[in-house]
Amino acid sequence: MALPHAITALIDEFARLPGVGKRGAERMAFDLVSAAPERLEAFAAILEAVRESVHLCPTCGFFAQGGECEFCTGHRDHASILVVESPQEVLAVESAGGYRGVYHVLGGHLSPLKGIGPGDLTIGQLLARLENPAVSELILATSPTVEGDATALYIARQARREGLGVTRLGRGVPMGSSLQYSDAGTLRLALEGRRAVDSP
Amino acid sequence: MALPHAITALIDEFARLPGVGKRGAERMAFDLVSAAPERLEAFAAILEAVRESVHLCPTCGFFAQGGECEFCTGHRDHASILVVESPQEVLAVESAGGYRGVYHVLGGHLSPLKGIGPGDLTIGQLLARLENPAVSELILATSPTVEGDATALYIARQARREGLGVTRLGRGVPMGSSLQYSDAGTLRLALEGRRAVDSP
Repeated sequence: MALPHAITALIDEFARLPGVGKRGAERMAFDLVSAAPERLEAFAAILEAVRESVHLCPTCGFFAQGGECEFCTGHRDHASILVVESPQEVLAVESAGGYRGVYHVLGGHLSPLKGIGPGDLTIGQLLARLENPAVSELILATSPTVEGDATALYIARQARREGLGVTRLGRGVPMGSSLQYSDAGTLRLALEGRRAVDSP
Repeated sequence: MALPHAITALIDEFARLPGVGKRGAERMAFDLVSAAPERLEAFAAILEAVRESVHLCPTCGFFAQGGECEFCTGHRDHASILVVESPQEVLAVESAGGYRGVYHVLGGHLSPLKGIGPGDLTIGQLLARLENPAVSELILATSPTVEGDATALYIARQARREGLGVTRLGRGVPMGSSLQYSDAGTLRLALEGRRAVDSP
């Protein structure tokens, strides 16, 4: 291609991002190249700001900028800790609404095949947080997969202490789905987890 | 959202790019935030390089880095000029293969409704290039739309001089398409542009 080197480098950089193909990366790069120089400058400055100031919260592992994250420093219910695998899942729980406690991001799940043990996750930090007697609830919201379940089970075993309630997310058929197309495993879990219908 | 400001700014910047929605922008931003600091630094440096060094070729209007573009300075057939509306279309013609001449990028098409006249495009520069008697062929490859056709017609009228052949791209049914689903306008053009079948 007869493109200037800086543009092909920009296309390559976009193409490395998740969900972006060659054609999409080209469209993005050409859009930026044709944009006002101020936009390129602002974009570069934002990337620099992310590099320099964004880090993982030393308490819970969520994204933070300068010290602890906004959950750990905010007006939240610090007696309840919800455990997820990645920061994105914190945002998913937040957008669902209804949870007012704090979080703990593990940074992945246990996977002996990939050589990921408890020491590679923030399980030690979580157990240290649980030593605080003010914490009364631990919600294990790891992924509903074999590895996620194994991780939850491992943590639940380590976390046992008086006055700490340990739960995990309910399993069953998702909202708006069709029973006809539900997989057997999900239906089995939904049957096992059936609840009494409360008449009003 | 409880995200650090730098991350929401990065998500906004990605969401401004063509073909990127809110969810896609979040995925891209999180991927970069979780990446090695060197990758953020390299990305920012590339954006700065694009801003500082990429400009439009003073001769043909294609992207260039320092002086003229690689077509105008390269071993190409400078007697043939192919006219397109945008730099991306130069790449499309190049990837089709077979053309060995140089290009001229108009920077858009004539559009009286949007107030875009000949002075807003690089038509003046094109006519100046055509004054060179060494140029013998002008290929008008503007978009096959009403505005593109009008732009091609305008240029063709201005460009008339002895020894200059002016052509435009053939019209007809695209390769691999189904006649059944061709629109009426395309079929009409294909009929008008029918060619004798050369027996081998």
